Amino acid sequence: MDLKIDVKTTGISAAEIEKTRTKAYAAQDRLWAGKDDFTGWVKLPMNYDKDELEDVIAASYKIQEQCDLLIVIGIGGSYLGARAAIEALPAYSGKYPRVRFAGNNISGTYHSLLLEEMQRSETCLCVISKSGTTTEPSVAFAILKDALISKYGKAEASNRIYAITDREKGVLREEASREGYKSFIVPDDIGGRYSVLTPVGLLPIAAAGIDVRAMLSGAEAMMSSPKWDKDAVDYACARFLLMESGKSIEVIEYYEPQLQYFAEWLKQLFGESEGKEGKGLFPASLSFSADLHSMGQFLQEGSRVFFETVLNVEKPDRDIKVPESAGSLLAGKSMNEVNQAAVNGVIAAHRNAGLPVIKIDIPEMTAFCFGQMVYFFEMTSAVTGLMMGVNPFDQPGVESYKAEMRRELNKNG
Amino acid sequence: MDLKIDVKTTGISAAEIEKTRTKAYAAQDRLWAGKDDFTGWVKLPMNYDKDELEDVIAASYKIQEQCDLLIVIGIGGSYLGARAAIEALPAYSGKYPRVRFAGNNISGTYHSLLLEEMQRSETCLCVISKSGTTTEPSVAFAILKDALISKYGKAEASNRIYAITDREKGVLREEASREGYKSFIVPDDIGGRYSVLTPVGLLPIAAAGIDVRAMLSGAEAMMSSPKWDKDAVDYACARFLLMESGKSIEVIEYYEPQLQYFAEWLKQLFGESEGKEGKGLFPASLSFSADLHSMGQFLQEGSRVFFETVLNVEKPDRDIKVPESAGSLLAGKSMNEVNQAAVNGVIAAHRNAGLPVIKIDIPEMTAFCFGQMVYFFEMTSAVTGLMMGVNPFDQPGVESYKAEMRRELNKNG
Repeated sequence: MDLKIDVKTTGISAAEIEKTRTKAYAAQDRLWAGKDDFTGWVKLPMNYDKDELEDVIAASYKIQEQCDLLIVIGIGGSYLGARAAIEALPAYSGKYPRVRFAGNNISGTYHSLLLEEMQRSETCLCVISKSGTTTEPSVAFAILKDALISKYGKAEASNRIYAITDREKGVLREEASREGYKSFIVPDDIGGRYSVLTPVGLLPIAAAGIDVRAMLSGAEAMMSSPKWDKDAVDYACARFLLMESGKSIEVIEYYEPQLQYFAEWLKQLFGESEGKEGKGLFPASLSFSADLHSMGQFLQEGSRVFFETVLNVEKPDRDIKVPESAGSLLAGKSMNEVNQAAVNGVIAAHRNAGLPVIKIDIPEMTAFCFGQMVYFFEMTSAVTGLMMGVNPFDQPGVESYKAEMRRELNKNG
Repeated sequence: MDLKIDVKTTGISAAEIEKTRTKAYAAQDRLWAGKDDFTGWVKLPMNYDKDELEDVIAASYKIQEQCDLLIVIGIGGSYLGARAAIEALPAYSGKYPRVRFAGNNISGTYHSLLLEEMQRSETCLCVISKSGTTTEPSVAFAILKDALISKYGKAEASNRIYAITDREKGVLREEASREGYKSFIVPDDIGGRYSVLTPVGLLPIAAAGIDVRAMLSGAEAMMSSPKWDKDAVDYACARFLLMESGKSIEVIEYYEPQLQYFAEWLKQLFGESEGKEGKGLFPASLSFSADLHSMGQFLQEGSRVFFETVLNVEKPDRDIKVPESAGSLLAGKSMNEVNQAAVNGVIAAHRNAGLPVIKIDIPEMTAFCFGQMVYFFEMTSAVTGLMMGVNPFDQPGVESYKAEMRRELNKNG
């Protein structure tokens, strides 16, 4: 039940990877030493607080009883991990709350539509912000909290708000204490984009009916797999060598639409960890086979600025037999068989064109495999960043637009 | 009510653009001469068949009466234009059918969930395919048609299927004639990615309650605006010069989540028109401000391989006042004011970092403006392609994966 990585069709020789391994293992050793800031995620799958997990799960049951609409307010690392899991692992039964996300944009239109949905639904809010002062979630939380109070009154509204924030500091921590919101902690030693397996991700994921214990087991299995070191390191080495050879873009490709937000999570993880000091692979994602009919032409014959990383789910949740009327080539096969033919056909066509392709096989789309994937990509991202000579755990560039935005806001008012 | 283009913060001088204009005007003249294949879209806004439009609108009314779920089956140019419009222009009232899309992937899980939704809903199908033989829509149509027949019986199912296909040829045309589906024509002189203002896009868009007459008027206004030539040409020249200067990626950025599929449509238009003979800008899209908290770090400080094109909606449909509890900097402003501060703040921060930015202001998100945007970007794409010396209307590379996929399918039995 392990992920399988194939870097043989990258055009990079085994010898080159072998030569680069020393550097990658040094990076991994440094991460395991745990002396750098924000490396709490490395040992998290074996170190996490079991009581806190039980508390998260209990809160998720309460949310499921209280509401049919859970609005999760957060941005960046306080948004993408939970959304990635909830879209990848849809709970079919309809017995869990619908989860919507807010505070990740500043669109009046978007939030107006959400307020309408809230009027029709029993609602809870889950607000996630380390500092409590990030603009986007602050605006959304202020608006949605007002609406929640109008709907339920102040006391019951407080009973329906769940806060995930700093242990001690910040306006959201103060408000949670004052108003009596049920609250959880954003750890100090884990950055936003590495936080999906902390309460930041786990509470909304559990509320959506997903087995978070299995997810943590998957991460632990990945962490302790003997095969794992080699695989994560091979992937990191291949990425590093392709970048060194002049590739600018890593195109992340998936054939199950439910992986859209996993790719978005990955884009943050890679882009924000590596994109600094003028360096980094630009991460882009494509949803196949849809985008074979849009960007497929570019991949096959356009500018050779990219390499591809294919996320292939070997055994998807559901399948359908293709009826006779689809014609003799397709009839009698299942959709997933046809999909696998597309995966292999595209890789063959791109290999024939000399394009570098990395293939990652995911055995099945379960909470366990999702946990494996999270830990695998977190490690790859950190190792590649260290190999590139950047700090994979800071994001100094994010402050620039915030400062200019504050200037704009002051100007107008 | 015109789009406004600003290329002043690209680092390209007015003199350089001026010098490149000759080439761009020559491309435009060639398009207007209409001697090349697949240039029917150039004069479409004034030449379209008025009777056919009335027929499309009449069919859309019938669909609205028949169903609350319209499943549109198509891929590439038979998918993205309609989806772009329907998501950009949500009909709030709930009196129009929900539109879902199928046949743009081969996921058994995706289509199983759709079959479940179909069981709960009064359903119509709209199947769009020029040849009728493209794998993805063929598989989906076979499956959904079977389900429709089980639900309604054969005669009523035929009454609920709408086909848009070649005028004369192909298996879908034959089936439509044989079974008596209401059908429309995919024109011969307009390629898929330029076809949103033909029945390919107009039927699903009209069925979703959007004013397609206004959309065509917008395209006509753009086509005949005296300002327009200059703007589309400025944008094409800036893109061409940025590419010549070594940029590999055009990052399309939007601040209204409802523009997500407009960006996807644009990625096909640009990527498929330009990505050939080893050339082309890789089009990527980012949803702001969400992605400022994921890819923002990379943009600000990472590898300088890209330039940015901002799609800024000046007056979105709806707005919300930010309550007091959001803090003094934000309270009293509206969400859209805060959003505009983000737009201007990001542009300032990126300009300070020396990043090239093109800004496109869209006055409001209406069907009329959508029509303007479609024509504007179609012209830019074709002009840039011709300037680069490629044929912007073919897609020879798309065949490669199809051939390999057929080989895989034959291999498996």
